[in-house]
Amino acid sequence: MEVTRRDLIRGSATILAVGSLNLSSSAREKDPLPSWNDGPAKQAILDFVKTTTDKSNPKFVPPDERVAEFDQDGTLWVEHPLYTQIIYCLDRVGPLVREKPELKESEPFKTVLSGDREAIAQLSARELFEILLATQSGMTVEEFSADVKSWLATAKDPRWKRPYTDLTYLPMQEVLKYFRANGYKNFIATGGSTGFVRASSQQDYGIPSEQVAGTSQAFTYGYNKGGQPILTREPKLVLNNLGAGKIENFWLMYGRRPYAAFGNSSSDDQQILEYVKAGTGARLSVVLMHDDATREYAYGPAHGLPDTKVGTLSQAMYDQAKAQGWTVISMKNDWKQIFTWEK
Amino acid sequence: MEVTRRDLIRGSATILAVGSLNLSSSAREKDPLPSWNDGPAKQAILDFVKTTTDKSNPKFVPPDERVAEFDQDGTLWVEHPLYTQIIYCLDRVGPLVREKPELKESEPFKTVLSGDREAIAQLSARELFEILLATQSGMTVEEFSADVKSWLATAKDPRWKRPYTDLTYLPMQEVLKYFRANGYKNFIATGGSTGFVRASSQQDYGIPSEQVAGTSQAFTYGYNKGGQPILTREPKLVLNNLGAGKIENFWLMYGRRPYAAFGNSSSDDQQILEYVKAGTGARLSVVLMHDDATREYAYGPAHGLPDTKVGTLSQAMYDQAKAQGWTVISMKNDWKQIFTWEK
Repeated sequence: MEVTRRDLIRGSATILAVGSLNLSSSAREKDPLPSWNDGPAKQAILDFVKTTTDKSNPKFVPPDERVAEFDQDGTLWVEHPLYTQIIYCLDRVGPLVREKPELKESEPFKTVLSGDREAIAQLSARELFEILLATQSGMTVEEFSADVKSWLATAKDPRWKRPYTDLTYLPMQEVLKYFRANGYKNFIATGGSTGFVRASSQQDYGIPSEQVAGTSQAFTYGYNKGGQPILTREPKLVLNNLGAGKIENFWLMYGRRPYAAFGNSSSDDQQILEYVKAGTGARLSVVLMHDDATREYAYGPAHGLPDTKVGTLSQAMYDQAKAQGWTVISMKNDWKQIFTWEK
Repeated sequence: MEVTRRDLIRGSATILAVGSLNLSSSAREKDPLPSWNDGPAKQAILDFVKTTTDKSNPKFVPPDERVAEFDQDGTLWVEHPLYTQIIYCLDRVGPLVREKPELKESEPFKTVLSGDREAIAQLSARELFEILLATQSGMTVEEFSADVKSWLATAKDPRWKRPYTDLTYLPMQEVLKYFRANGYKNFIATGGSTGFVRASSQQDYGIPSEQVAGTSQAFTYGYNKGGQPILTREPKLVLNNLGAGKIENFWLMYGRRPYAAFGNSSSDDQQILEYVKAGTGARLSVVLMHDDATREYAYGPAHGLPDTKVGTLSQAMYDQAKAQGWTVISMKNDWKQIFTWEK
């Protein structure tokens, strides 16, 4: 059954290619998504781009309006078992305590300094949030960015023994390039700290800092000892980019409903995927399912156990995807290769 | 003395042009700022672009980093005697009261409905703010944008009897085009409501909505009666884009220090102009002085009377401009023509 479906899709791709006589032969032959297996997910992405960039199609989208949104953690790079940004913040507790020794004996810093992995894994969301704010505040915006860059250049993921920036997904890099080549402006909307993601978004994804929206702390304008104006990061939340906040803040920052949105099984992408799909014309909402325990990880919503028979996507999200025509990516079946360095 | 100075500048421009043998003759001959009189302001703008786009110059700025910021009211279009957005909000009090008749007898709405211009002019900042929030809330983001567009298409400025969008400054339109042609990404940073400015920024300035940062109200994600997801404007301030807020929020939204910033004599541009000028390499901070009582208006900071001998720029801002090498534009002397339709 699956083979038949794939054959059908291959067949129609050939018919399309032969029909498009005005395309150059190199354009006809070159697959923009070579790390993807043929299947409904790949086809939905190709169809969406074809439809929205074809002037003769009633669903054509003018170049100025071609906006695509991408979640980062778990959609563009690995997020399991811990968000990279949390690892960074835990690593920053040591230097923070050297600067402010009074924190040494107070929780949650004491637990982090103990190095007791099990105890650290038990920290509450509130305690983690306290660590995130404390370790990402008090410095200028430039100092913070430089520190993130230097950490990313040296820290390594314990499983693959590689820099975290090597853990971006090759198939998604191809999607970013394919969209860009077709006039789309790519944006990241992340639950992570805007400043953390911006430190490497241009290098990692070709996405400039002004196209990265995330959870944002306050900045305060002031002057350094030399009288030069500076912006200092404050331990105060201004924009919470989780759940509905992701689309509320996307509108606040950019004033747009994207034409395409890519998220993953975490519930924090539910509202933006739903909102994008509800727009007029051709809209693409894609949810990535982490179901590859061998090559990456298999896990369900909110990093807990899968709650349903559909495996690593919650039943509610899966039902919504089916009912509203979202595209579901199975990492296991749809991705030929996951990382650039793999093979 | 003035003539001698202009002659000198003309002379050096000729030398520069003759020296640039690799430029095409049309590029050499075509003035990108034809509505500007020759003088130090025009020359500073031309020099900045030349320096930052010349690969052999140590102050060359890579295309990815070419970010320029523009204030809107009083910098890109007329702001006197009232901000256009305030006129819009006052016009919206009528429809608002028809929807919510309970507001009819309460201040400040009662005063606005009275039509008593003098009483309206006496409204406090706090009362105006209440009107701004009330008239720009409760609708979806799309409804608000459509309403602003339809108002802009019909409302007319009482002095010139023209649509407000005809009151953009031709010399600044030339600057926007000149910057864009040289690889700069133009951003608006305005004290006005983001959604109001975005409604016409693409049409008026060629600046897409994602490059407009302003004072921002909250949006709430929810569903309409048909079950479709919507974003509703709430009467709650999220980002205050005045004074230091203008650069704090610019960083929050875009993560950049612009290379060039254009503001006017209102003190709300002081911090961003100062911050831009304090950056490394070539930086251009420009302040527009409203000193043309005949062709536009002559007025000082905060729309009050000029407080100093330098006329329509506060002594403090003028001193800072001189001390830090900002460029001061005199509307009267530097602009050959102010509006497109003039002559």
